[in-house]
Amino acid sequence: MKKALEGTIVLDLGQIYNGPYCSLMLAFQGAKVIKIEPINGENLRVRRKGDCHELLMLNSNKLGVSLDLKSEEGKEIFLELVKRADVVVENFSLGAMERLGLGYDVLSTINPRIIYASGKGYGLEGPYANRPAMDLTIQAMGGVMATTGFADKPPVKAGPALCDFLGGIHLFGGIATALYQREKTGKGQLVEVSMHDTIYPTLASALGAYYSQGGKVSQRTGNQHSGMATAPYNVYPTEDGYIAILCVADRQWKSLLKVMEKEELLNDERFQTNIDRSANTYIVDEIVTNWTSNRKKLDIADMLIKANVPHAPVQSIAEVAEDPHLTYRGMIREIEHPKEGKIKVPGSPIRLSDSPLTEVFAAPMIGEHTDEVLQDLLGLTEGKLEELRDKNIIRSKEKMTQEK
Amino acid sequence: MKKALEGTIVLDLGQIYNGPYCSLMLAFQGAKVIKIEPINGENLRVRRKGDCHELLMLNSNKLGVSLDLKSEEGKEIFLELVKRADVVVENFSLGAMERLGLGYDVLSTINPRIIYASGKGYGLEGPYANRPAMDLTIQAMGGVMATTGFADKPPVKAGPALCDFLGGIHLFGGIATALYQREKTGKGQLVEVSMHDTIYPTLASALGAYYSQGGKVSQRTGNQHSGMATAPYNVYPTEDGYIAILCVADRQWKSLLKVMEKEELLNDERFQTNIDRSANTYIVDEIVTNWTSNRKKLDIADMLIKANVPHAPVQSIAEVAEDPHLTYRGMIREIEHPKEGKIKVPGSPIRLSDSPLTEVFAAPMIGEHTDEVLQDLLGLTEGKLEELRDKNIIRSKEKMTQEK
Repeated sequence: MKKALEGTIVLDLGQIYNGPYCSLMLAFQGAKVIKIEPINGENLRVRRKGDCHELLMLNSNKLGVSLDLKSEEGKEIFLELVKRADVVVENFSLGAMERLGLGYDVLSTINPRIIYASGKGYGLEGPYANRPAMDLTIQAMGGVMATTGFADKPPVKAGPALCDFLGGIHLFGGIATALYQREKTGKGQLVEVSMHDTIYPTLASALGAYYSQGGKVSQRTGNQHSGMATAPYNVYPTEDGYIAILCVADRQWKSLLKVMEKEELLNDERFQTNIDRSANTYIVDEIVTNWTSNRKKLDIADMLIKANVPHAPVQSIAEVAEDPHLTYRGMIREIEHPKEGKIKVPGSPIRLSDSPLTEVFAAPMIGEHTDEVLQDLLGLTEGKLEELRDKNIIRSKEKMTQEK
Repeated sequence: MKKALEGTIVLDLGQIYNGPYCSLMLAFQGAKVIKIEPINGENLRVRRKGDCHELLMLNSNKLGVSLDLKSEEGKEIFLELVKRADVVVENFSLGAMERLGLGYDVLSTINPRIIYASGKGYGLEGPYANRPAMDLTIQAMGGVMATTGFADKPPVKAGPALCDFLGGIHLFGGIATALYQREKTGKGQLVEVSMHDTIYPTLASALGAYYSQGGKVSQRTGNQHSGMATAPYNVYPTEDGYIAILCVADRQWKSLLKVMEKEELLNDERFQTNIDRSANTYIVDEIVTNWTSNRKKLDIADMLIKANVPHAPVQSIAEVAEDPHLTYRGMIREIEHPKEGKIKVPGSPIRLSDSPLTEVFAAPMIGEHTDEVLQDLLGLTEGKLEELRDKNIIRSKEKMTQEK
C-alpha cells in the first residue's frame, strides 16, 4: 500500500515547533521530508545541552541535511533541490527568505510546480507583520491569555504551545489542499498561515458571549464555561486531585443528579434546561462540589463512566506521558535513537485507513543525510562533497563522527 | 480562477465546534458543504435563545438541510446524497453513526470513493474510546490543565476551545490528504482524528522537560516557559495591564538590556547564554519587572518594536474583537445576516494564493436550503418535498416562514 504523500519531496526549513510540526505530518503521510539546517543546527538544537527532546519529538521520519544558505554555493545547491521538490516549508521571521534571495518569487520562477508554505507569527502582511512573534506573544495578542485563568487573578498563558501547533497544522492542511489543486491545474502556489489568525476562531465561546451580550461577561472564567453558557461545567476538587465534569444535555444533568443521589432536584425549576442551569451556575457548582470533595477522583470517574456523564480526571504530565490510551493508539511511541537510546515520540493524530503510519524512526542528527541526499537528488560526487565540506558549506555525518 | 476544492461535495453532520470548524475550512476552500441537521437543529443552536453567535461564526458558506436521520425515509435520502458526495464529516459520539446504520462500512459500500471523516474525543478505538468527551474533559485528561496556571494554584483550563479546534483542523488536513490520495487511487477512505491525540504533541515543552529531567520540573509554570528553558519569558505587570516579553536569541537579550539602560549587565556571566539565563530565571524576571512596572504597556511595546525584542501586550477580548491586524487580513469579517443584521465572523486562517477566500456568506438557518439541495442533487419534486415535510422527515425554509 502506497502512502498518501509518497513520491512527494519536501524541503523543510522549519525551526522550533511551527514548521517542524507541519513537516512531521507530511513525513508521517509518506512524503520524503528533507530537514535543511544551518551548519550548527536549527535554534531548537541548543535549548538544552545535546539534542533536546522537543527536537526529537517533532523531527521523526525526516532526512537531515546541513547546508549554509548564506553562502552562494549553498544557495545554488538549495535552488537545485527546489527544482526537484514539490513543497518548501519555512517559518523564519518575515523577510528572511527574501533577504537570502530565496523568496517565493524566485523559487516559483525556477519551479512553477513548487508549493511554498510560509508559517509566520502575524502572516506576510498587515500592520503587525513586522513584529517578532512567538507562541507566548501570540497568546498575549490573540486573546488566549485574556481568557485563561481566574477572573480575580492575572491573565495566564495556556500550557501547551497552542499557537505554534495550530499554525503548523493549518499550514499542513493548506499544503495538502494545494497538492490536490495542483493535480487539477499543474501549478504550485503560495500557502500562508499566520499563527495569530488561527487563534481567533478558537475563541468562539468568549467571542460569542462578547458579540451577543456586548462584553458584559467576564473574559476569564477559570474553569467555568468561557461564555458562562453551560452548567455544570467546571473542575471540581476531590480528596486526591481534581476532576472535570460537565453536562451539555439535560439528560446528562438528570443522570448526574441520580449518581449524586439528589433525585429531589430532578424537577427543580432552577435546573431544568441548560439556560436555567447557566443562570444558576454557582448553585449548580456548589451541589457538585459537595459531592466530589469527599470522594477520590478515580472513584468518581468510575461512577460517571457508568452514568454516561462527561468528565475526566485532571492528569499530570507524568500520567499523560504514560497514558495507556495514547500508548494503545500509537500516539506515544518508544523508538531507538542512536545516541539517546530509547526515546518516546509522538505518532500521527491524523489517521488515514489507506495511509497508515507503520514506522517511526528517530530525528536526524545535524547533517546525518547530507551526503545521501545530495548524491541521490543532485548527483554530487564524493570529491565535490568533500570540497563543500572543506569550505563549511555543508556538514556531513562523516565530519560529525571525526569531531567526536 | 477555480477554488482548490471546487466541485467537491461535503455532507457535514458536524455539531458544536470540532466538525463544523473542519467543514468551514472545506467550504472556504470552495467545497459545496451541506450542513445536515436534525429537524430542531444541531446542539449548538440552543445554547442561547436564537441562533447563538458561535454557530454563526463556524457555519458560514454552508448550505443548510434539515433531515431526520432517525427515520427510514430520512436515511434513504441521506444515502442517496452519499452516492453523489465526496466527503462525509461527523463528530457524533462513538457508535452513533453505526446505530443509525450509517457507519463507514455502509457508506463506503454504497460509494467507494467516499472519504468518511470522523472526529471523536478519544478516537474510534482504545481504552477510553467509549467515554463521553468534550473540550473540557480532553483538556483535563490530555495535560492542558496540568500545565496551565500557576504552580501554587489549582490547574486551570485554557480559555480557547483548543481541543475542539485542534481536532477539527487535523481532520481538515486528513480530508485534504485523502482527496489527494484519491486522485492517485480512485478510492475513498476512513479519516480519523482523536482530539486527545492532537494535544500530546502540543505539550512538547513540558514533555521535553519531563523526559529529559525525569519529571523534576514543576508542571505548571504560570507565564514562564513550560520547560523553564527560556529566559526572559514571562508576562510582566505594567502601569495599565500586562505585557509578554521573551528572548530566544542572545542578541535579543542584549537589545533588551540596552532598551532598559542596563548595559552594565551586557557581560554579566549569569546572563550570557539562554542556558545561563534560564538558570537565573527569577533574577532575570526581577530585572525586567522593575523596568516594566512603572511604564505603560503600549509605551513599552513601542520601545520593544524598535529594539526587535519579541513582546506583545495582553489584549482583552474586546481588543481582539476589534483587532486592526485581524481586520486588515480579512480574518474578522463583517457580513449581513437576514435575521441578525450585521455580524462578525472569521475568515480563513489558511490562505492559498490560487484559492483566495473572496466571499463569506452567513450560516444557514435550519433547513434554509433543504428544498434546493434535494431538488438539485436528487431531483425530488415539489410534491415529494411536501410529503416529506408533512411527515416531519425534512424541514424547509417555507415551513419555517409559516411558523413565524
